[in-house]
This record gives sequence, structure tokens and C-alpha cells, in this order.
Amino acid sequence: MVRIALVGAGFIGSVHARNLAEHPEVRFVGVADIDAARAGDLADRMGTQPLTDTDIYDSDHVDAVLIASSTDTHADHLRRAAAAGLPTFCEKPIDLDLAHAIDTVAQVTAAGVATMVDFNRRFDRDHRELHRSVRAGEIGGVELIQLTSRGPSLPPLDYIATSGGQMRDQTVHFFDLARWITGEDPVDVFAAGSVFTDPRMAQLGDVDTSVVTLRMPSGALVQIDSARRTGYGYDERIEVLGSDGMIESGRRPIGSVSRYGPGRIVGDGLHAGWFERVAPTYRAALDHFLAALTTGADIGPTLDEALKAQAIAEAAARSLRTGNRETITYPVTPSAVTTH
Amino acid sequence: MVRIALVGAGFIGSVHARNLAEHPEVRFVGVADIDAARAGDLADRMGTQPLTDTDIYDSDHVDAVLIASSTDTHADHLRRAAAAGLPTFCEKPIDLDLAHAIDTVAQVTAAGVATMVDFNRRFDRDHRELHRSVRAGEIGGVELIQLTSRGPSLPPLDYIATSGGQMRDQTVHFFDLARWITGEDPVDVFAAGSVFTDPRMAQLGDVDTSVVTLRMPSGALVQIDSARRTGYGYDERIEVLGSDGMIESGRRPIGSVSRYGPGRIVGDGLHAGWFERVAPTYRAALDHFLAALTTGADIGPTLDEALKAQAIAEAAARSLRTGNRETITYPVTPSAVTTH
Amino acid sequence: MVRIALVGAGFIGSVHARNLAEHPEVRFVGVADIDAARAGDLADRMGTQPLTDTDIYDSDHVDAVLIASSTDTHADHLRRAAAAGLPTFCEKPIDLDLAHAIDTVAQVTAAGVATMVDFNRRFDRDHRELHRSVRAGEIGGVELIQLTSRGPSLPPLDYIATSGGQMRDQTVHFFDLARWITGEDPVDVFAAGSVFTDPRMAQLGDVDTSVVTLRMPSGALVQIDSARRTGYGYDERIEVLGSDGMIESGRRPIGSVSRYGPGRIVGDGLHAGWFERVAPTYRAALDHFLAALTTGADIGPTLDEALKAQAIAEAAARSLRTGNRETITYPVTPSAVTTH
Amino acid sequence: MVRIALVGAGFIGSVHARNLAEHPEVRFVGVADIDAARAGDLADRMGTQPLTDTDIYDSDHVDAVLIASSTDTHADHLRRAAAAGLPTFCEKPIDLDLAHAIDTVAQVTAAGVATMVDFNRRFDRDHRELHRSVRAGEIGGVELIQLTSRGPSLPPLDYIATSGGQMRDQTVHFFDLARWITGEDPVDVFAAGSVFTDPRMAQLGDVDTSVVTLRMPSGALVQIDSARRTGYGYDERIEVLGSDGMIESGRRPIGSVSRYGPGRIVGDGLHAGWFERVAPTYRAALDHFLAALTTGADIGPTLDEALKAQAIAEAAARSLRTGNRETITYPVTPSAVTTH
Repeated sequence: MVRIALVGAGFIGSVHARNLAEHPEVRFVGVADIDAARAGDLADRMGTQPLTDTDIYDSDHVDAVLIASSTDTHADHLRRAAAAGLPTFCEKPIDLDLAHAIDTVAQVTAAGVATMVDFNRRFDRDHRELHRSVRAGEIGGVELIQLTSRGPSLPPLDYIATSGGQMRDQTVHFFDLARWITGEDPVDVFAAGSVFTDPRMAQLGDVDTSVVTLRMPSGALVQIDSARRTGYGYDERIEVLGSDGMIESGRRPIGSVSRYGPGRIVGDGLHAGWFERVAPTYRAALDHFLAALTTGADIGPTLDEALKAQAIAEAAARSLRTGNRETITYPVTPSAVTTH
Repeated sequence: MVRIALVGAGFIGSVHARNLAEHPEVRFVGVADIDAARAGDLADRMGTQPLTDTDIYDSDHVDAVLIASSTDTHADHLRRAAAAGLPTFCEKPIDLDLAHAIDTVAQVTAAGVATMVDFNRRFDRDHRELHRSVRAGEIGGVELIQLTSRGPSLPPLDYIATSGGQMRDQTVHFFDLARWITGEDPVDVFAAGSVFTDPRMAQLGDVDTSVVTLRMPSGALVQIDSARRTGYGYDERIEVLGSDGMIESGRRPIGSVSRYGPGRIVGDGLHAGWFERVAPTYRAALDHFLAALTTGADIGPTLDEALKAQAIAEAAARSLRTGNRETITYPVTPSAVTTH
Repeated sequence: MVRIALVGAGFIGSVHARNLAEHPEVRFVGVADIDAARAGDLADRMGTQPLTDTDIYDSDHVDAVLIASSTDTHADHLRRAAAAGLPTFCEKPIDLDLAHAIDTVAQVTAAGVATMVDFNRRFDRDHRELHRSVRAGEIGGVELIQLTSRGPSLPPLDYIATSGGQMRDQTVHFFDLARWITGEDPVDVFAAGSVFTDPRMAQLGDVDTSVVTLRMPSGALVQIDSARRTGYGYDERIEVLGSDGMIESGRRPIGSVSRYGPGRIVGDGLHAGWFERVAPTYRAALDHFLAALTTGADIGPTLDEALKAQAIAEAAARSLRTGNRETITYPVTPSAVTTH
Repeated sequence: MVRIALVGAGFIGSVHARNLAEHPEVRFVGVADIDAARAGDLADRMGTQPLTDTDIYDSDHVDAVLIASSTDTHADHLRRAAAAGLPTFCEKPIDLDLAHAIDTVAQVTAAGVATMVDFNRRFDRDHRELHRSVRAGEIGGVELIQLTSRGPSLPPLDYIATSGGQMRDQTVHFFDLARWITGEDPVDVFAAGSVFTDPRMAQLGDVDTSVVTLRMPSGALVQIDSARRTGYGYDERIEVLGSDGMIESGRRPIGSVSRYGPGRIVGDGLHAGWFERVAPTYRAALDHFLAALTTGADIGPTLDEALKAQAIAEAAARSLRTGNRETITYPVTPSAVTTH
């Protein structure tokens, strides 16, 4: 049994709390939150106890920490866990400020604790099968990738305002997927975006709909389309064209019911929300984290990988502003990058 | 070039006429019909000439005859073609009266001319691939077959009245498919039927919806469901379960357009009418007939096979009346049966 | 919180145990088994305690009982729960001996406790949507139903020997679905079966592959095909043709990955085992049971419905032996049947 | 009957020849080719006669001309047909040299004859349904378009050398589709490309794999991926995201056969070659041309539309070279553009 403490009792914190409570290999030692009452409520519901920040980093009673607090506190918690020598499973991003994120990674890396960033799409069953197949060479060399990232509806504007913008908040998952699938770091990026949903998005300097092109050192080309509001549900899709064939992790309808009428067949639609679609990936990511802790298997996505995805997002955001293709500059950090 | 004359200028006659007119290996010498004006019109439209019954059987100018006249004249034309030594491609059935059909087959067989009956479903691209796969042993031994035969709307009652009933008119195609796929002659049959569309169907002694079970000598089981009116289009489907897997010739939508809305994906529907779905099979059957004539390849479905399908239909119609499982008695005819 | 005790710590008992342990509205008070060590192990793993038969029926500490013990003990446990006035959620069947089952139902019904039989397929997400649609009249009147029930591999012969045979063990779920979807009790049944997997199946008087036809009072026709061994996974499918359209609860692949190669697209397959496919239905059935207890909503499938499905299975088994269509005789029990 | 003469007896000429020969409303008066023997052979096979260039422009015997000769002769034939006052259906492009093409269009437009350029993808059944739906506002305002254009195998290098490159030869069809679907002229273009198939492609200054981004005046974003060699067949796909939903003209497999094995379902694949996939569009385009001639309906794609697609291709080719986003400059021609 791995003893895990949770920081953060908000929406994503609650998702992790349930997974921790139900996991047969986890002892869920407790939850802390900046709002102690919220921590207490969640602890009650999950049959665990509320903790303080100090309790959490008590390595006598805790084996690992799961950080799901608000974005601006991730870096601080990462540092404190590292100082306590505790392995950490941290929600993305490390910090919206790239320089601060780089500095944090340097410190955590120096401490030598195992750390994993929750780019949870990597743990989707279909994406994993695609990744396995591509890496096994089943479609030959990678030549072209299409990624679709579309949310059902515009998040609240106050969320948008602190999110870092579409590239850093939404598309960053797909920058990570592109690196993970190809095993390559893109060279440059071109992005174009528009606002269709709410004119205040433009006032915030953000876009709700965008397309991105990445060029890989091998010559492989990557297209990503991102939309904040589809009207038809949450839509995520990957397609990889290789020299020997193509593989697709396709749209996944919520059921297999078909209704036959004159001239049409009406099938079940996509998930109404992003969470319904990706919920199982949180548990799968936790399984991966636990396996790495207990078996010494490679852990990942690593902090360095998270920095790289963030560096791509920075360049993409710059391209959105300039209208030009932008070269991507990767941070230099002490440790080697592992793409597992 | 094979010189072919056509008998019958009705709907199916016109379908064959167009195929004959467009076929690069056919010289379409002309068309006869009991209604000379109708023959004249069709001949005009297809760039050929109207013929009399006598012209048709003139083997100096005709190499083969295509019989698409009304059902009650098939047997007579088959006999006349046989007497003239002309190979024949004949619409099904030979004759609704089984005894008369048997007698006709005996005479034609004695004359030794190549004859093919237009069980056109055998020439559907998907059904042929299923047949090839099953016969190649790709799914192991056949254990269970599901056949779906559903028309979009009830034909006119005067058509129904002379059709011989659902088993002899509609399901007979699927009796033929079951024999063709398995290479076996079913031992007995159970049928149950209902009337949902028009109460006059019952007065005609017919049903519009039915299910049939066939048992094969190998133990393979066959289920066929037939409906006259779906409301959603023409629906034909085959599924074969074998000892090593399953193969399906599935519903075929008319297009690949999908419309994504909240909770649903609306795809293109099935063909509105049976003809739109099976139209290419008429041409493919003609190709097969021509290939048999010019290369000496096996011809089929043969007259004997048509009699066998008809014998199954007879027993099925009997089962509908008695409510009991009925043994199938096959006619004994001079020639051997070839299932190609 | 509803306090629930579990009887049975075998495979299905363990499935229910996990659902009870994880359910936020359940207090899982403990588990009993004829093998006390097995009960102890399961209790340990689920964080509950082992119980004796006496503990289970202690209504001071238990609000409801879940019976998942071996088939031959169901009736006895149902009686004891009824005597204790405890609502019960019971695995099917009540008893393989129909007369004994009828007698048990009479006693339990007289006791007036809420009882639900675990025909879990009713709780499949797709089947429920099909049921809702059909009952809402979205396809008009029901005319024809196709049900497919195919397991991936032959169960052990010692399981088969005590199972009651394919009709009572496997197809009975689909007899229940047919009643549930149509709201009708079939009038008669025709069944035909074969043995393809292991000749000892025939020595046991059983079949591994069968087709069944049910006729409903309305004239609706039902076809069910059942196979014990597909080779390609677990395959369950429902298709309902109505006067205004058709609805299908289709084959459900385990993922949405497609691999494109020359001439073929290779998609993910079906579930390897039946349990993977139906696992969520156990939890959904438990939710339904809890909702009925706490809100007074209709409970079901009821004992009477279970008896009816069993009566159909009896007649179908008889038809397999006689080769004839068999009339179905339903037991007369005190309470009214509710098809919810 | 419309009397049509054909220029060009090569591969595409032969395709048009068959459609002309079989069309019930066309009198196929003959075919000319720079290689008279080739014209003679084709004329023989299609039951028409070989013509000289002079015969073709004899408006006493010809009502319209179909130009399917080699690309470098299109402009000359367009001028001669215009001079003779004959409506023309011309293969794309007008001329690979944009200035020459503009000059040709000016002359033809001044002559006032109806002219249609064969951007045949517009006549695909599924693309037309998508176009109809988008233009009818069924998905609201257009926000994002994905177009996939992938050929099965690299054409011969000598074809590539004179083709104008991937943008002008292949992707140009999709530039036209983007304009047709949105009714907008893109403002600028970004393209990136690679060579994966044959290093000589790079020596020719061409690419075999590319991605393109177009920005529309409305803010709509368009992504196009083009590949010369898939290995798995011809792959064409359109997806349009709108403010109220999404519509897709999807990959179209050649059949509906599915083969179920352990863990996989093997469906029929895509068309092996591009021609098999788009063959019906040639006939549909001819139907459109005839309808425009006989009913006075709008004709299109017009010469001006062809110029616009070509102007986009020019800018895209420039972007491939410079690596920058390029503004698109449209030619100014006398007549108004109609997007029908």
C-alpha cells in the first residue's frame, strides 16, 4: 500500500480523491486545501481526513503527494515535496510563467525525487494503442499527424482570463501528444486563430478556435485544430499517417445504438463534456504513477517533458500574435528527457 | 461480341436492356414484348430494334436470349430457347407451379443448352466477398447464418396476389443465398409470419413479415427474417458465424456523410428502394453469363439450383400454414447440381 | 446509507462485493459464504467483515440482502430473507426446478418484501436506450426482433452439466429481454440446436448453438441466436423493427482505433469475455435496486418476471427435444406482473 | 440531344469518351487527338468517329466541346472554342502559367461563351451533400475546415516534373473545395512540406507531403493535408465545424464486409486508386454541364473560379519556398465570379 496525500479539493482534486479512495493499492491518508472546510467536506465523503500543508509533507506518514491545487501553487508544492523527498504526481502546468517553471524543475530535479506531470491524455486507452503501434513501427516512419482538440462549450471567462490562453491551457495537451507519439521535439510552429464565441475573448487577447502546424526534425508534419465550443460535445481525435499505413484514434461515441429512418441512420453522439470522455485517464495515470513507484519503472510524463510542451505553447502563442512561423526554443535543464 | 435478344420490355426488361446496350461485349440485337408498342419504345430508347417471338429464336442472328417477360411466360420461353439451341439468361422463377417448373427443367436440360437463372443477389459485391471468404474456409466451418430481407414498402396488392406469396417471391432469394453460401441443401424448415401492413394481405393468404429457420445436414442453422415494409429503406444483410470467426455483409448506407449534433451523429441512410441497392448486380450477373458463354466457365445459378430454392419456398409456405416444422422434398432432375 | 449483506463469495459474489464496497450510498455490512475462509478473504479485500447465515438475516443490522451464492441455494436464501422481512437482490435463476421456483415465489410474494432478480442485461446502457425508445413509440408498433447471444468460448463441461442447458442458462436472459422490450408474453416457441464444440455436449443433452423463434400475442416475431463459442469475443446485439423504423443496440467494440492498410481497415474488436462487456450492468442494477428501496420506485425484474422467462426456457428446451413448436405455459402466481 | 466533340484521347479523354457514348442526352460526334491513331482507336471503341481540330470547331455539327487534351494545350483549345462560339467543358488547369491563364480567361470571357472547368470533386455525392448542408446553414457559420487529400502512390517522376508541383496539381482541387464550401476567398496561406517518397522529388523542387493553412475573411480557418503516397489507398475527406454542429464527408470504404476475429474487426478498405474513388464525379460533372446548356442554369466551376484556385496554389507554392505566411493576390478579370 502506498500512502498518498492530496493537495487540492476542487473539481480535479475531487476526481483524484475518488480514485485514491477506491484504489486497492493506495492508502489515502488525507487531503489539504487552502479552504480547510472544503478539504474537510471532501475528506468526509471519501472516508479520509483533512490535513494541513505540514501534514502533507510528513514523510513518516506519507509516501507520495498528489498536487491538484490551483495552478499558481503547483510550483511551490513541487518544491516542498522535493524538499521532503516525496515523489509527486502533479497536475499540469508546472507554472504558467515558463522561467519560473524552469527554475522549479531545476530545483526538483536536483532533489532527485520521482515526479510525474498529469498529461492525462497519454493514458487514454485508444491513444495508448495508437502510440504503441506507431512506436512498434507498424505504420513505418511517421509522416503526418492530425490532432483534433475541441471542447463542447466556452469555459467561464474568468477561467479563460487566468488560463494562459488556448495554446497554454488546451492545445498544450496535444503538443505533448505530438512529442509522445513521434519521440521528436518540433523545430518550429505556425498558428492562426479566431474568435467566434464571445467578443470578450479577443479583449482577453485569446482565441477560441485555432490551427497549428508543427514541423519535426525528421520532416514529419503535425496539424492541430483546437476549438473551445463545438455545440456537439467533446471531440478528440488523432490520426497518424506513416510510410506503411495509417492509424487513427477516432471519435468515440457514448454508445452503440443506431436508429434507422428514411434516408438517415442516427447513432449515439460524442460525450457531452470533456470530463466524461477523459475520466478513465485519471485513474490510468494514477496506476502508472504507482507502478513507477513500486516497480521502479520509468515515470512520465516527466517535468522536462512538461517544460517542452510548455515551450511549444509559448512559441505557438507568439505565432498567433505575429502571424509568422516561430522557432521553438527549449529550456536547458539538468536531467535528460525520457519519452516513455 | 455476343448477339443477345431480350424478351420483355417491362421494368426489369428495361434494366436488362440498358445493360445490354452499354455492354462492350454485347451486340443487343433487339427486344420483343407481348405489347409490341412497348417493345418499340424500348428499342428506340436503346438504339436497337423491336423483334417478334420468331426473330428471337433465330439462331442465325442471335447467340443468346435474355428472358425478362412476365413470370407466367418464363417456362414457355425457356422451352423455345432450348428448342432453338440458344443459351438463356432467365429471370426467376422458372414457373410458380413447381411441377411445371420441374417439367420445364427436364426438357431444357435434355436439350443441353447453357441456362442461368437470375438470382442476382449472388452477384452483389459484398455478398460475393462473403461467399469467397466462407468457401475459402476463412471462418472455419459454418455454424449459424442470419439473413435479413426487408423491402421499403408493400408492393401493390395486385402484384402480391400473383406473386406466389412472400416465401416464393421474396424469401426465395435468401433460400438461394443460404444454399450458395453453405453448399448444402437444407433438411427442413420452420416458418412463422404475420400481417402488419394491410389486412387484405391476410385475405390473400399471404404475410408481410416472417421468420424462417432452416436446418442444414451439417447441423448449421439458418435464420431469415423477411419484411415487406421497413419505412427506412431497403435492408439486406448476411452474417455467417463459423468455427473460427464471423463475417458479415452489412447494411450499406448510400453515402459517408455524418452530421454531428448534441448527443447524436446522423449518418446517411439505406437505399430508399430495393432497385437502387441491387442495380449493379444485374450487370454483374450479365458479365457472369457472358463469361460462361465465351470461356466455358461454370454457369449458374443453374435451373436445378432454382428448383431447389423453389422447393424450400414450397416447404416454407407449407410451414407458415401448418405452424409445424416441414421436411423439404427436392425434385429429382436429370442433371447434377453445381453450386459454383 | 443502505446496509447490505452479501451471500456468496465466488466470482459473481466478488463482483457485487466490489460494487457494494465502492457505492457511496451503501454500507457493506459483510459477506457470508458456505466456505468461511473464502468469505473471510473477500471481506478482507473489501474492507468489510465475514458474516454467518444468521448475521445476514439480522434485520437490526441489515437493510437488504444480495444473494449471489450457488444456484441451488437461491431459493432457500430468498425464503429466509422473506421470513426476515428483508428486501432482496437475487442472482438468477430462482431455482432450476420450475415447480420449486414457483413455490418459492409464492412464499416470498406472500411475505410482501421487495425482491429483484438480476437479469442484468436490462441495465446495459445501450439496451436501456433501445427499450426507452421502443416503449416511447419512436419506431411505432414492434414487428420483428433479432437478438444475438454469443459467448466467446465453451464454459467448462462441469459448469454446463449443472447449468440447466443453453436455454435455461444463456438464452433465458434474452427471453427476459424479449418480454421487457415488447411488454408481451410469447405464445409459443420453436427452437433448433446443434453441437459444434465438443461431442460431450450432446451426451449432456445440451447444445452449443441454437436458434429460437418466439411468437407474441400481437403477432410480433422474435428470433434469438445463441452460441457458446464465437472465437472472436463476446457478442450481444438487439435489433427491433417497428412499423415506423428500426432501432439497434449494436455490437460494441472495445475501442475506436482504426488501422488503414491496403484494401482493409482493421478496427478494435469486441470484448474478449462476457464479463468485460456486461460488468457495468451489475453496478447499474444495484443502483436500480437502491433507488427502488429508497424512493419506492418500481422494482424489477420481479420474481414473476423471472418465472416467466424460465417458463419460456422450459418450453424452448422442450422444443429442442421434440423438434416441434411448443406452447408456453406460464405459472399462475399471486401477484401481478410489472414490466417496468 | 447535345452534339459534343472531344479533344484528347488519353486516359482522362477515354473516361469522358465513355460517359459521352453512354449518355442518353448526348450525341458523341467524335474525338480528336494530336495522335490521330489514338483518336481513331478510341473512336472505334466508342462507336464514334475520329475528327480533326477543324472538325471540332465546326459549329454546324458541334454544339459543345469537351477539352481533355494535354495541359499545355488547354488554353489554345479554350480560345478556339470561344472563337467558334462553342460552350466548353475543360479539364483543369487553364494553363500552368498564371499570367497566360489570366489572358486566356479574358479572351474567352469577352467571347461570352459558357465555359466550365472540371474541378470534379465538387460533383462527388457526399461532398455535394456537405456543401448543400453548409450553405443551407445547417451547421451555422463555418469556423474550421479540415480537408484530406492523399493519393495511394507517387505518380511517375516525369509526370511530377511537368505537373507544376503538389500545390498546383493536387492540392488545387482542395483550394477550390474550400472556396466552394465557404463561398469565401482566402486572404493568406501558410504551407509546409516534406519529401518522404523519393529524394528526386526534392531535386524537382517539389514535395510529396504537405500541410496548408488558409485564413478566410470571416475568420474561418482551413487546414489541408496532402500526401502523394499513403500505401493504403486513395483517401479524401472533408470536415466542417460550424457554430451549430459539424458535418463530415468521410472516408468511403469500397464495401460493407466486416470480418470478426479475436480483438479485431476487419472492414473493407478504401479505393486502391484515386480514379476508382472519383470516377462517378466525371459523369456528374457532365450532367451539370448539359443541364447548364439546356436549361440555362448557372454553370460552374467557372473560369474565374479556376483562376482563383490557381492563385491560391501560387501563393501556397511560394509559402513552401519561403517558409512564411503569404498573402494571396487574385487576378482581376472582366466577369463576376459565381460560386454556385
